[in-house]
Order: sequence, then C-alpha cells, then structure tokens
Amino acid sequence: MKFLVIGGDAAGMSAASRAKRLSPDMEVIVLEKTEDVSYSACGMPYNIGDESRDLEDLVVRKAQAFRDKQGINLLTGHEALELDPCSRAVRGKTLQGEEFEYYYDKLLIATGGSAIIPQVEGMDSPGVLPLKSLEHARKIKSLITNSKVKKAVILGMGYIGLEMCEALTERGVEVSMVKPNPMFLPWMDRELADRLQQEVESRGAKLYLGHELQKIEKTASGLKVVCNDVSLDADLLIPAIGITPNSEFASKAGLKTSVGNSIAVDKGLKTSDEHIYSAGDCADAYHVVSGQKTWIPLALYANRGGWAVADNVNGKGVEVPGVVGSAVFKVFDFEAARTGLNMREAEKAGFEPVSVTIKTRSRAHGHPGNTTLRVHMVGDKKTGRLLGMQMAGRDGCAHRINTGAAALHNRMTVADFSRMDLAYAPPFGPVWDPLLTAANQLVKKL
Amino acid sequence: MKFLVIGGDAAGMSAASRAKRLSPDMEVIVLEKTEDVSYSACGMPYNIGDESRDLEDLVVRKAQAFRDKQGINLLTGHEALELDPCSRAVRGKTLQGEEFEYYYDKLLIATGGSAIIPQVEGMDSPGVLPLKSLEHARKIKSLITNSKVKKAVILGMGYIGLEMCEALTERGVEVSMVKPNPMFLPWMDRELADRLQQEVESRGAKLYLGHELQKIEKTASGLKVVCNDVSLDADLLIPAIGITPNSEFASKAGLKTSVGNSIAVDKGLKTSDEHIYSAGDCADAYHVVSGQKTWIPLALYANRGGWAVADNVNGKGVEVPGVVGSAVFKVFDFEAARTGLNMREAEKAGFEPVSVTIKTRSRAHGHPGNTTLRVHMVGDKKTGRLLGMQMAGRDGCAHRINTGAAALHNRMTVADFSRMDLAYAPPFGPVWDPLLTAANQLVKKL
Repeated sequence: MKFLVIGGDAAGMSAASRAKRLSPDMEVIVLEKTEDVSYSACGMPYNIGDESRDLEDLVVRKAQAFRDKQGINLLTGHEALELDPCSRAVRGKTLQGEEFEYYYDKLLIATGGSAIIPQVEGMDSPGVLPLKSLEHARKIKSLITNSKVKKAVILGMGYIGLEMCEALTERGVEVSMVKPNPMFLPWMDRELADRLQQEVESRGAKLYLGHELQKIEKTASGLKVVCNDVSLDADLLIPAIGITPNSEFASKAGLKTSVGNSIAVDKGLKTSDEHIYSAGDCADAYHVVSGQKTWIPLALYANRGGWAVADNVNGKGVEVPGVVGSAVFKVFDFEAARTGLNMREAEKAGFEPVSVTIKTRSRAHGHPGNTTLRVHMVGDKKTGRLLGMQMAGRDGCAHRINTGAAALHNRMTVADFSRMDLAYAPPFGPVWDPLLTAANQLVKKL
Repeated sequence: MKFLVIGGDAAGMSAASRAKRLSPDMEVIVLEKTEDVSYSACGMPYNIGDESRDLEDLVVRKAQAFRDKQGINLLTGHEALELDPCSRAVRGKTLQGEEFEYYYDKLLIATGGSAIIPQVEGMDSPGVLPLKSLEHARKIKSLITNSKVKKAVILGMGYIGLEMCEALTERGVEVSMVKPNPMFLPWMDRELADRLQQEVESRGAKLYLGHELQKIEKTASGLKVVCNDVSLDADLLIPAIGITPNSEFASKAGLKTSVGNSIAVDKGLKTSDEHIYSAGDCADAYHVVSGQKTWIPLALYANRGGWAVADNVNGKGVEVPGVVGSAVFKVFDFEAARTGLNMREAEKAGFEPVSVTIKTRSRAHGHPGNTTLRVHMVGDKKTGRLLGMQMAGRDGCAHRINTGAAALHNRMTVADFSRMDLAYAPPFGPVWDPLLTAANQLVKKL
C-alpha cells in the first residue's frame, strides 16, 4: 500500500505518523512545498511578541526525525501541482525546479489554507507580510528585532489580527488596524465585542473600522496605506483578513468542493473520489449543531482529521462527528471564547433562536481577583435546545467554553444544561457558575 | 398556603426567596437557629487567610433584607426541635429560651450538616474550634488576629482541612495535620494525590498520616494533641474530619433516611411524607453516573434543591437530575478537581472500570506559564462509558473539570468524548486538550 500525503502541516503529518504507526510496512510519502513541517502556527503571534523566545522553538518535530525515527519519506521543498485521479498520479516541481511524479493507492490532500491578500496596487511592496507560514514569521520577527518597525498596520481585526496587534504592541510597535466592515468582531454579541474593542483601544492601538483599503504607496521611509478617508504610515503591513482553502489542486482534478471553496468530504474524510481523502484547513466539515456543511479551519480538527484518515487508510472505517465551532483567543488581558452558533447563524440554519447576555462575576462574592465575566447564550425556542454561547472577560472564559462544547455535542436543552452539577470553589467561580446563570436566564425566555 | 422552612442557609433561603417570588401571597416562614443567614460558608477559609478582609463581607444578604424587601418571615435564633407530621407542627425554642410552635401546609427541612467531632477526652477545651458556621469563623479569625495562634493542628486532610492549612500558613501560623488513614486524599488517584501532598509539605505544613487522635490535654500555654506515636503542641485545634447530615430532627419524626443518615428524598426533593421536602447538606441525592442514591453535601446542589422545592411547593412538578460529584479545590498554588466516580466507587457501583493517568502540559508547546497537568480518567470496559475524571496541576484544572461533568450528565462514551471539538489557543492549552489526550489514551484500554 502506497499512501501519499500532500502537505506537511497538522493534518498531513498527523496522518503520516499515525499511518506508519498502525502499519509499519506501509509506504508513506509526504510532499511539502516549504522546508518547514510540524510547527505550531497558532503560536507564532505569541512568539513574535516575546523577544526572548526563539521562533525555532515552535517546531515540535524536525523533518529529519520523521524520516529517521518514523520511516516517513518526507520530501520538503516539493510542491504538488497536478493531480490525475485516473492514473492515481501527482506531479509537481521541487524548489530547485526539478519535476517529479508520484503514484498512490490512497491520497490525502492536506494543502491547508492561504492568507487572503486584497488585490490592490502596491501589495507586492517589501514590508507587506502576511502571517501564514513560519517563513513569514521569521521575516516579521527579524524586521522587528532589527528595529525596522516603528509603525505597523494590520488589515483585518480577526483572531490573527488581534493576536498580532498584541504581539506588536508588546514589542513597542505603534499599531493601527483597518477593515471595511464598521463592526468590530461582527460575529460576536455587541456587548461582548464592545468590551473587547475598549480593551484593544485602551492599549494604544488605533482601530479604523469602515475603511476600505485602496492602495499601498512606497514612501522614502516605508509604506503609506491609503484607505478611503484615511492614510496611514507604516513600516510593516500585515494582511490578516482571513484565509482561503488551498483547494485549487483538488478542484482542477474534478473533486467536489463545498462551503467557501473547501474540498467536500464525508464523515470519514473521503472526497468525491474514493481513493482520495482531505483533511485540515482545505477541507469542509459537518457542523454538529446545524447538521449542515461548514468550513471552520481550526488546528484541533486538522489533527483529528489526519488521524481519522490514517485510520481509514488502514481500513478502520472511522467517522468524525464534525465541529461545533469552538474557539478561544486572548486580547491583551481579556479572554474571549465561542462555541456553536450565534443568532444570525442559528436563524440561517432554520432555528428560532433566542438569546440572553448576562454580566456576572468570575469568582465568588468578595473573593480577590474577582472580575466581570460576560456570557451570551443562544437557545432554540422550538425545541429548547442550546445552540451556542460566547464569553468575554479577564478570567475564566477559555476553559469554561468547553462545557458548552460538550453540551452542544450532546444536543442538550438549555433547561438540562441549567441543571448540571458543575464544580464550585470560591477562587474559581460563584456558586452558580456564570454558565448556569446564563442558562437559568435563557430558560425563562424559551 | 403556609410554607415553613427550617434552616436559613443555602437551600432554605433559596427556597424561601423563590417561593415568595413565585407566589407573593404565600406565607413563608424560616426558622434559623443561629443569627446568621445567607453567607458564603465556602469562602470562610479564604477570608480567614486574608487579614485585610472583613468576615462580614461573606454575608450575601442580611436577615433584615429578607424580611423587609422580600416579605419572608425570617426568624433567627429559632431552633426547631420537634416535628409532628400528623398535626403538621414544628416545635422549638428561641435562643432566649422561649418555646414556639408553627404549623405548615408544606415544610422544607434544610437543616444542613454539622462538623463531626471525635469523641475524645479534652475535645471541649477552649481552643478547639471546628469551621462550620460564621460564628466559628469569627472566633478562629479573632484568635489569629489577636496573635493568639502560633501553632495549629488540623484533624483531617479533606477540602476544608487543606483550605484551612493554606489560610493559617498565609497568616504565619505553623500548621500540623493529623489523620488516622495512612493515605493522603484516599479517593484520589495516587499520582495526583502524591503531587498535592508534596505541594502541602513544601509549604511547611507537617502531615501526620496514620496517627489516631487519643486525647487533648490542656497545658500552661495551650493544648497538647496526643495521638499514637506523636504529641503536638497547639494554640488552636480544628476538627475537619468531615460533616454529618443534621437529620435527627427528621428521623425522630419517622421520616426515611438513606446513605450516611441523610434524609431520603425523591427527584422532586420530597421526603417519605408528602407534605415535607428536604434539600441541602441534610438530604441525599441521585448520582447521575451510578443511578444510585448518594450523599455529597455541596453548595450548588443545595441552592438548586432549594429552588426546586420552591417550584414544587408552587405545584410545578420539577425534578432535579441529581449530582455527578463535581468538586474543585485549591491547595496553595495547585488546583485539584474531580467529577464522577473513581475506580473504587465505579467497581462498587457495578461497572468494570479501567483508568489512565496522564502527565501533560497546561498550555501549548513552548508557551510561557506552561506547567504540568495530570489527568486521571475512568471508563467502563463493558459499555465504553466515561465514568469519572480527576485533575491536578497549577493551572487549568478548575474549569476544565466541568467539560467532564457535562459529558457525565449526557452519559457519553470515552470514544465520543475524545472526538469533541474543544477550543484551542496556545495560552490556554495544547492543540489536543489534556482531557482529549487522556480520553485518547483511555480509548485504547477499553
């Protein structure tokens, strides 16, 4: 059996490692277009923000270790360009320009995603650097460390944009953030989003909401980021408006695509071709709450998808239940988290959503370190089901959200959720956990 | 309708308040034997440990507010002594020695629990003080604040004992802890318990495991706590070997009792008499995992029980699902948490339990603040069901345990648990959350 993997990141290397562990005799080949494999991409902003840390620490396992210790034929600097499902062949080119061709019995497409780069004049200027690969991170960190960056502009205000805002601010860089949408974190409940916006602005970052980027001009000292109504000087411009799945390789070969041009897969991660799997940021997933297809690129699901593909290549017939859309991020001293559907998503999915937003305390009455915690919770009026929740506060959001995720995986009603026996001690929460208080309030509206 | 409540703590005041809110015309009488109602008993050790905090801050709502603002006939200093279910009468005595008698249509017995006091010679000496009521806390704190306590002995090493060990250490008191059982936290997995024991000992507390208390002698300067093989000098002795339900009032009147002499109630919190409910630390509960009766006195369930009784007195027919035994506590810089059954409890409940204990990290690879986190997880070999989990570490135990609680309430299998979409970001955990890593390991053994 020849198992070919395209992409040496989370999904690809998880699949390759597990396949080799399950079947040591299997021939496992990985084609990775860069020289970097198996590093914590999510850790890049935090590492950049800390001068004392080495970016190479983000590498969990070196390429040579996969070759020597696991017997994986890991080929870095190999870009796959063309897929021929009939002859089960993948063709491409190395960084040195040599052409190659590999055949497979089973193929995994784990090509990940790419940063979306707005197509405006000047986007190819030096000093414009997205943060998608370790190579990008190296360039950005070296610019900062060499004191070349006094001012930075970040396009977009999503997770990566906000994490980079914090990292750059930590390094003494003056940060401006720009985006066309006039709403800060539009998917979030307004009360929570407003509080996070205040936090970012209180740390000195300038937020330009509702400003469309028009062009980037080179100046004597750096860049001028020209938007409607505002022009911003910058030494570094980071486009962080989102990512798009690298699905062209698959779609050109006739594989079915789905939400947001992601590669369509079933619960066993199989594409429309029975010998080809896809996992990670390039593939779609089922949303456990809506039951519908979705595309939410997240690290855990990429790893899990890789494992499931390895299992299935080994004939195990494994299925993954899909995602509930759990995410957490840090914005300076604030934690923000979500799981499940927000009001708009719930409506779109055919529910009759009702929500509450409560303001409560992170610890027991009078306990030191007690801070405000906001919980937004969404339920379905027709069925009483819990549909989603969001949280924002200085303390106790990150791990609390997973209680919601577990409830969503089990299709709990808000009433059943409100009756759960959660742990209590004064340093960690009030007697009625903020999640229970939110559920108690929401029950009344259902 | 006359609703009589015995006990003005968590369950009793929750019931009285909610009953009055649901039916403003209902006559609600509460008999409380002390002068204190509605205070955070769980907050007492933390408050005692902090000289700058006032114990009265633990009072959430003053007695007079319940009378004036909620119209509850709250009678403090009223001890109920005798129940006559036939004539629906409760008789007792006030602190001033006056006898009283009240009739009811519906009665709630929320008499709570009492600290277990070992019956040995000298236990009535001054300087022997359990920590069960606010009045106890006032005495202990005032002794410390007046520099009367240089050395303290704590009997028992459970939650309260450990919290008091920390509080007294913070106040500069030299602490020894004694108990007859040679095992530290016997309900806990050995690897986790050992780590917590190290933490306590590293802070200077002396642990005397396997030493039975024999007597307490008065000395010129204080007390001598005499155990087999060891005698300890002390200015303060805190018996913290556990609590026992205050069920004698109920059992004398012929009400059925259950596990550990707690008052037996159904899922609607009704006792064996159809006009009498019981809730809080004096009543039993169903264990959601085993389906069997249990007695786990915990604050949240007391509050929830009070609410459910108020609902049912108002004819709502509410049921509570029971407990999964979630608990969390802080031991100096460590957090420890549990939910569900441990190996021994699982065996006793008829399961075929298998467990794993893993040592993982609390944050992502290379992220600052990353510490060791230990997870112990128990599953059932026959059904694959998750039965319980425990955690210990410096970071990220307290709220993580509730993800397990949610899973237990939903009777999830370990395999389904391992496939959940939990939130990830480097400051808060590894890509594979410690809970998922434990579940992945446990799946292999099931």
